[in-house]
Amino acid sequence: MKLTTRLIDIGNRGVLLNAVDAREISVRDGDRVEVKNLATGETVSAFVDTTATIIGPGTIGVYRPTQVRVDVLDGAEVEVRAADRPASLAYIKRKMDGQRLNKEETYAIIKDVVADDLSPSELTAYIVSTYTNPLDMDEVEYLTRAMVDTGDQLRFPSYPIVDKHSIGGVPGNKISLLVVPIVAAAGLKIPKTSSRAITGAAGTADLMEVLAPVEFTATEVQQMTEKVGGVIVWGGATNIAPADDRFITVEYPFKIDARGQMLASVMAKKYAVGANLVAIDIPVGVQTKVPSVEEGHRLAREFIDLGERLGMRVECALTYGESLVGRTIGPKVEVQEALAVLEGATEPNSLIQKSLSIAGIILEMAGKAAPGQGYALAQDILASGKALAKMKEIIEVQGGNPAVTAADIVPGTYQYVVNAPTTGYVIELNNKALISLARAAGAPQDQGAGVCIHAKKGTRVQAGEPIITVYADRKWRLQKALEEGRRLMPVVVEGMLLDRVPGRHWTTRGGQQYGQ
Amino acid sequence: MKLTTRLIDIGNRGVLLNAVDAREISVRDGDRVEVKNLATGETVSAFVDTTATIIGPGTIGVYRPTQVRVDVLDGAEVEVRAADRPASLAYIKRKMDGQRLNKEETYAIIKDVVADDLSPSELTAYIVSTYTNPLDMDEVEYLTRAMVDTGDQLRFPSYPIVDKHSIGGVPGNKISLLVVPIVAAAGLKIPKTSSRAITGAAGTADLMEVLAPVEFTATEVQQMTEKVGGVIVWGGATNIAPADDRFITVEYPFKIDARGQMLASVMAKKYAVGANLVAIDIPVGVQTKVPSVEEGHRLAREFIDLGERLGMRVECALTYGESLVGRTIGPKVEVQEALAVLEGATEPNSLIQKSLSIAGIILEMAGKAAPGQGYALAQDILASGKALAKMKEIIEVQGGNPAVTAADIVPGTYQYVVNAPTTGYVIELNNKALISLARAAGAPQDQGAGVCIHAKKGTRVQAGEPIITVYADRKWRLQKALEEGRRLMPVVVEGMLLDRVPGRHWTTRGGQQYGQ
Repeated sequence: MKLTTRLIDIGNRGVLLNAVDAREISVRDGDRVEVKNLATGETVSAFVDTTATIIGPGTIGVYRPTQVRVDVLDGAEVEVRAADRPASLAYIKRKMDGQRLNKEETYAIIKDVVADDLSPSELTAYIVSTYTNPLDMDEVEYLTRAMVDTGDQLRFPSYPIVDKHSIGGVPGNKISLLVVPIVAAAGLKIPKTSSRAITGAAGTADLMEVLAPVEFTATEVQQMTEKVGGVIVWGGATNIAPADDRFITVEYPFKIDARGQMLASVMAKKYAVGANLVAIDIPVGVQTKVPSVEEGHRLAREFIDLGERLGMRVECALTYGESLVGRTIGPKVEVQEALAVLEGATEPNSLIQKSLSIAGIILEMAGKAAPGQGYALAQDILASGKALAKMKEIIEVQGGNPAVTAADIVPGTYQYVVNAPTTGYVIELNNKALISLARAAGAPQDQGAGVCIHAKKGTRVQAGEPIITVYADRKWRLQKALEEGRRLMPVVVEGMLLDRVPGRHWTTRGGQQYGQ
Repeated sequence: MKLTTRLIDIGNRGVLLNAVDAREISVRDGDRVEVKNLATGETVSAFVDTTATIIGPGTIGVYRPTQVRVDVLDGAEVEVRAADRPASLAYIKRKMDGQRLNKEETYAIIKDVVADDLSPSELTAYIVSTYTNPLDMDEVEYLTRAMVDTGDQLRFPSYPIVDKHSIGGVPGNKISLLVVPIVAAAGLKIPKTSSRAITGAAGTADLMEVLAPVEFTATEVQQMTEKVGGVIVWGGATNIAPADDRFITVEYPFKIDARGQMLASVMAKKYAVGANLVAIDIPVGVQTKVPSVEEGHRLAREFIDLGERLGMRVECALTYGESLVGRTIGPKVEVQEALAVLEGATEPNSLIQKSLSIAGIILEMAGKAAPGQGYALAQDILASGKALAKMKEIIEVQGGNPAVTAADIVPGTYQYVVNAPTTGYVIELNNKALISLARAAGAPQDQGAGVCIHAKKGTRVQAGEPIITVYADRKWRLQKALEEGRRLMPVVVEGMLLDRVPGRHWTTRGGQQYGQ
């Protein structure tokens, strides 16, 4: 059926057909059609919505994401017909039935994922299947290679290319802002792609965006890395392992973190940027994704195995993940903390030690330091001011202002300080609750939103001493965060848990009502 | 945020927000909002699409399905805010993790399913989880009861109420058109709800629709059943066990048929219509859902167990499912065949015997016939013309023309006869390929589309004798069916499979090119 195009500015995937036309070609809401651009001959498949009134017979409504795929203008003629189901659906069903997927099947699925030829439901079925029927190492390798091959790749003229990745699950983990400049200052190339927060308060890309633009093509990432040695960009803006972005949208509502998918996603991104030496930071702790050291060792072994299959050397660092890294959670407060360290601050210890450890591993892997000497070299680079200078180069090459200092970063103007209701020990500091608090305050979208923890777990505090400051860019957001604080009570001083009154108090003891 | 409603005639679930408003309340495409109708106070949750141009800030676009749920008119004021994730998502995750769901968790999920508070992806995650981590019998019972309680129920003043269900998987299974009138003619009440074809060529509801309207409310189903003893309606139009219709849309692309879901869906619909005596037809055959007799017995046992838990008596019949029932596939040709039997035709044997067997079981369960005498009684009722008279009453009460005869039913005017290319035996008659053929010809939407098989498997045919007639209502549909036939070759005469040339011939031997 030949139809005239009408562009529709709605972010749905697919196209809109008049119900009469839909009946004529025997498709219903949610079915697939093939849309052929008669000017270019290009064909894409798209999902159908129907309407009786918005567009008339003879016209096809093309939603925003489909406009890009089929490259049509208003008024263009297209040919539309009912489409077949993609073969990859049968492979997904196979995985659902507990069978192993071979290389061709895996590639077929990932190709369709990247081409947006699978509906969100179909993609969900794939993800859930690989979660309930875990991938074996062969399948993980196929998946990794398929994710690499369906996206852009960087090809540097010389090695080594180094990279790092943190598994996540620990808040305030801003170490890339230190590791990347330290490593690059040592003369290594580190094209670091990172993610935005999904369930967290600030991903590395959200942090870097406080300092400079983070959206670049793969080619730009390569050029900038060649120029200054390192970058910190948002992976989602490149077309590097683009299947991962699709997976994330589906995993998000259920916080699915299938082991095989995770291994493949991490390593595909490292492989695609051309890294041959990779350090993986695995935070271990009951609230992280890796609850025990044994579990951490198992995961490390898998990363190393997968690296060997792909010709990459991988080292893993099991890190302390029970408590936040540094004292801040949220874009601006975290950036301020990291910049201050680059500028010479000697605190917070947890942030500095962790960053130097990971940087040290990379320096040793690349032969910049003798075994056991990486940490010291990283420390020298940091102390010498070379890491700060390198960070300014990185900020500049990405289009930010290299003159920025920690003092220039101003967190949200709406603030609330939570004081200790009593003298005693901070016996509870709940990471997940702190993240919820920062998100309620507006993080990561509102860059000034976040929390600063003045007294970490185990610290002795005097009554009236500040424990937490909450920051927000908007007044109602601060209000919302305070409500969230009262609900979640992320901090407990001296263990008066039995005194807790649900829904009212945020900190225990003394009956102080917080945030009103 | 207070917004003004603008109705949008698109069959999407959810609402459309201007990107500025979406940012203000921190929601993105695919997130949930709560929409409160300020006139009625009613609140529903809905998924968000965003646009920069279609509607301006201050306005909310309300898609068709959402209009019904929140009951707003153009220009109405609504209050919109970011919504929380429903608790049922955590229960779905639990099932994904291999845990058992208790009664409350199951009810929470099914309530959200019926309220359309789960996205298609979320619903898919639930279905896939119950497929890969099968439900145990307690979970199946909770699910069944939840499906019943979230929909309408019929309550007849007296028992027994009988019902039947065929598991499906065998084409041409039009037996309800005979079983229902036979059983009702014996004085029993049988409020038969049935489905439309999803992957098949004609569901019972599609068949009945050739003779009369099939869309009624639960109350109408009850009233009509009380009046004439039986009905054959489309279950999807009633609000009986409405969760099932949602499941079907998700199961369809993968042909997922999770055992527990299937047991629950079948039995919930029987329970909800008030049936206390139920016969289940389980076709057994390599191409059906139940490949072996052992498997059939296991499934039968589960139906009977579940029935006992619900206070219903269930009997199962394992039936021959290797070959189609009767000789026809497609709405009009099947109805014509069934009506002819009611009118006294003594063929086809497979249709008559199967219908009498199932009707006989029901007659015995209800005490209308002594054990072992049900088949004979069913045969008497059919031969006496009482079943035909009852069918006319049923057609009339549903609003069809009771004077209709088999001769009045005219299949598609575009026809093509496939003749035997050689003398020999029909050694292969592929059910799935026959269904694809009927669907390619336009079934079930085009009522005249279908196939009639003149020579079933094992039959000896003479060269040039007709094997299959293909019917279509539209010329291009016939063309498409012929192409499908050439591709699938549903019929093989005398086993010259080795001579088969892919993509060209439809029947083997003699090189006759079929259909073009």
